[in-house]
Amino acid sequence: MPKEYCGIFGVFGHKSAGRLSRLGLFSLQHRGQESAGLVVDDRGEFHSRKGMGLVSEVFSAKDIEGIKGTSAIGHVRYSTSGESTPENIQPILVRHRDIPIAIAHNGTIHRSRELRKKFEDDGVIFTTETDSELILKMYTRQKGSRPERLRKVLNRIKGAFSLLVLFPGELYAVRDAMGFRPLVMGRKSRAVIFASESCAFDIEDARFERELKPGEIVKVSRKGVESFFLEKAEKCRCIFELIYFSRPDSFVFGQSVYESRLNMGRNLAMEAPVEADIVMPIPDSANIQALGYARQSGIPLEFGLLRNHYIGRTFIAPHQEIRDLGVRIKHTPIRTAVRGKRVVMVDDSIVRGTTSKKLVDMIKKAGAKEIHMRISSPPIKFSCYYGIDTPDKKKLIASKKSAEDIRKFLKVKSLYYLSRQGLEKACRGDGYCFSCFSGKYPL
Amino acid sequence: MPKEYCGIFGVFGHKSAGRLSRLGLFSLQHRGQESAGLVVDDRGEFHSRKGMGLVSEVFSAKDIEGIKGTSAIGHVRYSTSGESTPENIQPILVRHRDIPIAIAHNGTIHRSRELRKKFEDDGVIFTTETDSELILKMYTRQKGSRPERLRKVLNRIKGAFSLLVLFPGELYAVRDAMGFRPLVMGRKSRAVIFASESCAFDIEDARFERELKPGEIVKVSRKGVESFFLEKAEKCRCIFELIYFSRPDSFVFGQSVYESRLNMGRNLAMEAPVEADIVMPIPDSANIQALGYARQSGIPLEFGLLRNHYIGRTFIAPHQEIRDLGVRIKHTPIRTAVRGKRVVMVDDSIVRGTTSKKLVDMIKKAGAKEIHMRISSPPIKFSCYYGIDTPDKKKLIASKKSAEDIRKFLKVKSLYYLSRQGLEKACRGDGYCFSCFSGKYPL
Amino acid sequence: MPKEYCGIFGVFGHKSAGRLSRLGLFSLQHRGQESAGLVVDDRGEFHSRKGMGLVSEVFSAKDIEGIKGTSAIGHVRYSTSGESTPENIQPILVRHRDIPIAIAHNGTIHRSRELRKKFEDDGVIFTTETDSELILKMYTRQKGSRPERLRKVLNRIKGAFSLLVLFPGELYAVRDAMGFRPLVMGRKSRAVIFASESCAFDIEDARFERELKPGEIVKVSRKGVESFFLEKAEKCRCIFELIYFSRPDSFVFGQSVYESRLNMGRNLAMEAPVEADIVMPIPDSANIQALGYARQSGIPLEFGLLRNHYIGRTFIAPHQEIRDLGVRIKHTPIRTAVRGKRVVMVDDSIVRGTTSKKLVDMIKKAGAKEIHMRISSPPIKFSCYYGIDTPDKKKLIASKKSAEDIRKFLKVKSLYYLSRQGLEKACRGDGYCFSCFSGKYPL
Amino acid sequence: MPKEYCGIFGVFGHKSAGRLSRLGLFSLQHRGQESAGLVVDDRGEFHSRKGMGLVSEVFSAKDIEGIKGTSAIGHVRYSTSGESTPENIQPILVRHRDIPIAIAHNGTIHRSRELRKKFEDDGVIFTTETDSELILKMYTRQKGSRPERLRKVLNRIKGAFSLLVLFPGELYAVRDAMGFRPLVMGRKSRAVIFASESCAFDIEDARFERELKPGEIVKVSRKGVESFFLEKAEKCRCIFELIYFSRPDSFVFGQSVYESRLNMGRNLAMEAPVEADIVMPIPDSANIQALGYARQSGIPLEFGLLRNHYIGRTFIAPHQEIRDLGVRIKHTPIRTAVRGKRVVMVDDSIVRGTTSKKLVDMIKKAGAKEIHMRISSPPIKFSCYYGIDTPDKKKLIASKKSAEDIRKFLKVKSLYYLSRQGLEKACRGDGYCFSCFSGKYPL
Repeated sequence: MPKEYCGIFGVFGHKSAGRLSRLGLFSLQHRGQESAGLVVDDRGEFHSRKGMGLVSEVFSAKDIEGIKGTSAIGHVRYSTSGESTPENIQPILVRHRDIPIAIAHNGTIHRSRELRKKFEDDGVIFTTETDSELILKMYTRQKGSRPERLRKVLNRIKGAFSLLVLFPGELYAVRDAMGFRPLVMGRKSRAVIFASESCAFDIEDARFERELKPGEIVKVSRKGVESFFLEKAEKCRCIFELIYFSRPDSFVFGQSVYESRLNMGRNLAMEAPVEADIVMPIPDSANIQALGYARQSGIPLEFGLLRNHYIGRTFIAPHQEIRDLGVRIKHTPIRTAVRGKRVVMVDDSIVRGTTSKKLVDMIKKAGAKEIHMRISSPPIKFSCYYGIDTPDKKKLIASKKSAEDIRKFLKVKSLYYLSRQGLEKACRGDGYCFSCFSGKYPL
Repeated sequence: MPKEYCGIFGVFGHKSAGRLSRLGLFSLQHRGQESAGLVVDDRGEFHSRKGMGLVSEVFSAKDIEGIKGTSAIGHVRYSTSGESTPENIQPILVRHRDIPIAIAHNGTIHRSRELRKKFEDDGVIFTTETDSELILKMYTRQKGSRPERLRKVLNRIKGAFSLLVLFPGELYAVRDAMGFRPLVMGRKSRAVIFASESCAFDIEDARFERELKPGEIVKVSRKGVESFFLEKAEKCRCIFELIYFSRPDSFVFGQSVYESRLNMGRNLAMEAPVEADIVMPIPDSANIQALGYARQSGIPLEFGLLRNHYIGRTFIAPHQEIRDLGVRIKHTPIRTAVRGKRVVMVDDSIVRGTTSKKLVDMIKKAGAKEIHMRISSPPIKFSCYYGIDTPDKKKLIASKKSAEDIRKFLKVKSLYYLSRQGLEKACRGDGYCFSCFSGKYPL
Repeated sequence: MPKEYCGIFGVFGHKSAGRLSRLGLFSLQHRGQESAGLVVDDRGEFHSRKGMGLVSEVFSAKDIEGIKGTSAIGHVRYSTSGESTPENIQPILVRHRDIPIAIAHNGTIHRSRELRKKFEDDGVIFTTETDSELILKMYTRQKGSRPERLRKVLNRIKGAFSLLVLFPGELYAVRDAMGFRPLVMGRKSRAVIFASESCAFDIEDARFERELKPGEIVKVSRKGVESFFLEKAEKCRCIFELIYFSRPDSFVFGQSVYESRLNMGRNLAMEAPVEADIVMPIPDSANIQALGYARQSGIPLEFGLLRNHYIGRTFIAPHQEIRDLGVRIKHTPIRTAVRGKRVVMVDDSIVRGTTSKKLVDMIKKAGAKEIHMRISSPPIKFSCYYGIDTPDKKKLIASKKSAEDIRKFLKVKSLYYLSRQGLEKACRGDGYCFSCFSGKYPL
Repeated sequence: MPKEYCGIFGVFGHKSAGRLSRLGLFSLQHRGQESAGLVVDDRGEFHSRKGMGLVSEVFSAKDIEGIKGTSAIGHVRYSTSGESTPENIQPILVRHRDIPIAIAHNGTIHRSRELRKKFEDDGVIFTTETDSELILKMYTRQKGSRPERLRKVLNRIKGAFSLLVLFPGELYAVRDAMGFRPLVMGRKSRAVIFASESCAFDIEDARFERELKPGEIVKVSRKGVESFFLEKAEKCRCIFELIYFSRPDSFVFGQSVYESRLNMGRNLAMEAPVEADIVMPIPDSANIQALGYARQSGIPLEFGLLRNHYIGRTFIAPHQEIRDLGVRIKHTPIRTAVRGKRVVMVDDSIVRGTTSKKLVDMIKKAGAKEIHMRISSPPIKFSCYYGIDTPDKKKLIASKKSAEDIRKFLKVKSLYYLSRQGLEKACRGDGYCFSCFSGKYPL
């Protein structure tokens, strides 16, 4: 599936705000491994730590323990907009009229290039390529109270984003009007915590409280918690959070990610049964779907591929040798498991088709007799403009080829995609964004 | 299970010796994440790269591509002897009489402290704490041809080790006389390759040729491959390579690791059946055993625990906060999978019992109704002196407590260890070292 | 004397623009040792190198050789405004409407805080504390051609500054309307070079051409060299360039610095003769003045103090232990030279008086019989607001004490300051700024 | 003159042993700028700090303050033997039989290559290229008490060296039997201090006590100070310590360096008077000699050359661009001082002649009418084997050319070297090594 994007975390009113944020970001690491950043409010003094790499590389426990402060926001990032440079690491921290402001966001703003251009025509200079800087520059140009200024800015921009803004003594959490990206709120004794996913609460024994409503602005200060709302818009939740992005132990949009994926696998087995010897997942993103398929079909599960988890940041980085060396660095086949077998390979999605092809070849070479590919989502035919790093439409294999042509390209015996209905049923609920399948964009 | 220890890799006669070694070490990364090192022979000039951390952190592809040379040896390490300091990173490279010698070993030498002491009494100064330096100092004091000198040294020392020694134009691979540690040989066109495990061959399309015999010294030079032998000894292969250390896609001691583990799970299910709702592994080390148990018992497999793979080097390092923070950083429960269930938890082994206890608590807190622990090896009652980082006997829970007492300590409904016969049958073959179970030490 | 401040260097139209700038900055190193920066224009791509420390530490020859480009500007800095942080290292490089702009300045803008504040009230965010950023933000908000926009901005601000602005294919050099700070122009074959002092031309065999006129804007492009002028103002040249800042091999404001200082020493000897055994300078800043005094008086010169030139950046940095450890790290007495002698100590100026006192003590302790202090400038009674890092008026010893009281404080036999007339005569010319002596500020 | 070599510093019995050593090394920085190292004895725990670069770069005040310990030895180095690599940075610290030993030396051991070779033939492996390691390996192979073992080793080796050896609770200082290199002892209250030159005592208010005798071993422990002696040998003190190496504020071999140099200049003026307008030194090494010449001759002194002191380590490093860029980076002429003048240029010595030639050209180009070169030592015709980095005899200009031929090569009006008698008289005393002038080597 497409590359992960971003995770945000915030805490207000806890004496170990820095330490909690480090742990929270660690739990959100699957949402971005390229860079990590943290800003802590120590009675009006803002301390910042940033770097390229994993949370564990960027923040040492010792360093973070040393940072005092009771509120903080943090960010892990895979680049959706903005180059992979240190300047673009979030949170963005500035001082304006002697007051520090830090901002971190997950997602993307619609038409941000045009907005930036208009500013530049008025003589404004941008120093990063982040949408966060754009939001900040819009914010400082508004009048009124902080929540009013935030509302004015966010009503003017469209997009799929979750946002955290830290002022001395105040923390704001915002979910875009259509609710594309998840953002949840929790409590650890009196402290208020925000995170992209609920899994960040487990690590620190925090209590899940609720998901923010689409268009909700939550303000937290010494006076307590208040809510404000952006102008109304139709609900539109990114279905890929459930298919791929979120961690299986999270609850997202009110659903258990684990259960949704188990259902996807089950529905896939009902929609596309096949006679075979083993079911095997593409690890780790399709593990649970494969389990669902195996259980529903009665075909035994095998771990036919081993995923190497020791790939460091360098190997992950964009423009990397991996693509050249193929998927071999990340995956190796387990011959014993697949030799002479009729194999059902379960994956979460197909983007370009190149990785799938290499994996199919690998499993064949390891001795599989025949391969049946099962994909637990519909064909991705359209680019995403809401924060997911899908390639140009032209590079999406399903935008150009029929399922049958893809089957031929992959050289598998059969190929089946989960139907939209099957997916919807698996995820329950409604109001999902299916634009990457349908091309019907909500904005 | 005990911490991993070391992996070694060598190549002779390939123009990309550095690059192959980097990839080979990457495949052996599970055998040691603390440091990595590489020495390349470029027509008699030896180039060395070393560092603390993962292969991907220590060697950049670009740097390694730039190192010319047709032979190389490399090492990944988890400290068994020697402190975690840069000086102790292998391979050890020295010059003696203007000739460079590099040495890397996996394992441990019996009574090395006494041997070092005797040397020191003669005025010799050691600059590292590695057994490799000891072997080197013994070697340079011998007379005769290189293989003769190696034989003289290695006949004098006992221990569990695999060894690679690189001279300009010559590479030696040695397996200890009892064959404790694995060492395999492969080919990539004309180049000869050595590795701790066969999985290192897959990544580079090399051909597995054979395992070295216990006590075999293989010399590779332009003239070809020759074998020499150490004084005979009884075969004694470390069973934990199959239980825990080796990667499931490797063949070790002639066995498929994957199949051995599947058998362990199956035998465990036959020896200790139980009525339950789900079977779940402690990931990732017991994944395959759990699959075997589930398949044999008919109880459905579930992934009840999620393992966070983004734990960087800092988190792994000894004396780390992890132990304090508990296992929560590494594992999180998936509530949806275990809530209300009677759970069979499958693990590869129990050492101190503290981690197991925390995992049991975690799964209970996530809502499991009752827990049945199944261990796919016999109780570890004795320390290992052959290269595995087991704690003092006193800290081994099974050395002090009966299975029933451990069950009470873990607060599980039932606890069962795989019998030695069950384990032996699962691994086929014979000549294994069971000293950590039996206390009968071969040396 | 007060701490040094800044040096700037620019080159247009030379294929080794980076290398020339590195050498030029090296020659200007005495004007700032805290940080160094360089921006090179490579056909519209701007490459930047910056760092804390000396030119030789920040730019390696190898790195700089690797940077292509035919125009460049560079900066060495001792902080006058702005904290000593990496963000504040000049040149400041931004992109505006996809066009890179780099700017470096030497000096200070009058009332820059008020100007910044006004901008902030309009919602503008500053990311550095430099005046260069302020000038940039004013510039991008103007309309018209580049020279017009520069003129509009610089007519609006008062101050003592020399400025270099680099655009793709165009380089602007500006001297403030009153001509406080020097800025000279030279040629190396067809290339045009700018530097704070002429000494930067010698190192690269460039030809000194002329000093920029006060208020002159020189534009260099492929079309050649053009001049524009700011609104007229009275000439007001910083006399401390001749007393202390500039290097003795430079020509500044049309004067030889060496000769001016020799004259200062001579005039001082005529104004304040004394019977003594030796004349000794406080090295290195009063070496030439002492030579002048010795020559005029006929009293033999001795090197009574040794200056340690190996003080690295760390020792120089503000808030340093030096002040605590006293001047002993920087200076040591040569006992042989001063023991039993009546000593004339020549210094360039006295600021706080604390260093002078320590040096007097040191020379006394080394055995001098009596000490006569001679200062080659009038008493500094007032703070400088034009770019020199003088302390608050309160801390200037001469603002509170008469010469006789200072003599008593220093515990010297006699103390004499060069008269303003003596200084003016030594420096020839007119139109100097004497505000630190007189308190009559031109702005 | 030849490149500087090494400086050593030791302290016993002071609670700020680390801080004192840092300051002491800072005072000895002129003896070596390539690397610096420090080992502190904290009740038997030895802490080591080392790095390439200046003392101020390698040791931060803050870091050193943090190192506890009451004894220490330190080293600054310019490579005489051994490549410029981190491994070769002294002091060399090892553990032998669980006891740490640190050693630092200044100088060179005669025939050390042969000695190393003999060791290697016995199977010994060297890990550095330093003579210190050789001494250590010889030491650990001896029997007896520490002073006995040291004596045995040092009687066996010849050479020009000063040595410091630190054991837990004991510090040894050794001067070679012929007394080539200086080594002085001082006191700071009860603490005992050793240094290559007395100037290291001034910075820390320590009291100069005495120079070690040739062949003296001083042992300092809690019990006090004891002396032992090596086998007797003829005194042979390096005259270049007075001509060039030592700092002018030091007393070396019982002489004031400042006065010796003043005398050299005076004697040179008497031996080789000339009619001229100005006398100018090659700064800084001939400053004092030039002053002597000027005073004796009555010709006024001028500073015709400016030396740039901001050349960092990178610029100093061997194999540097400096040589290519010529001396222009280090020296610039002061036109005002030399234009139209008949100039007496005073230098301390001529080695290859290439630098002198460049400086002569520079002064001519700056407008000097005629140049008279005066060298304050005899022609260097032979290489030094006692620790000074002179080039091969072939590269010494005076080994191949007569004074008249050198004059022609330099294109100066006259050239005169100080006579050996004139030098001896200037330095008083006797027992100096003149082998670089005479070719008569004492060993």
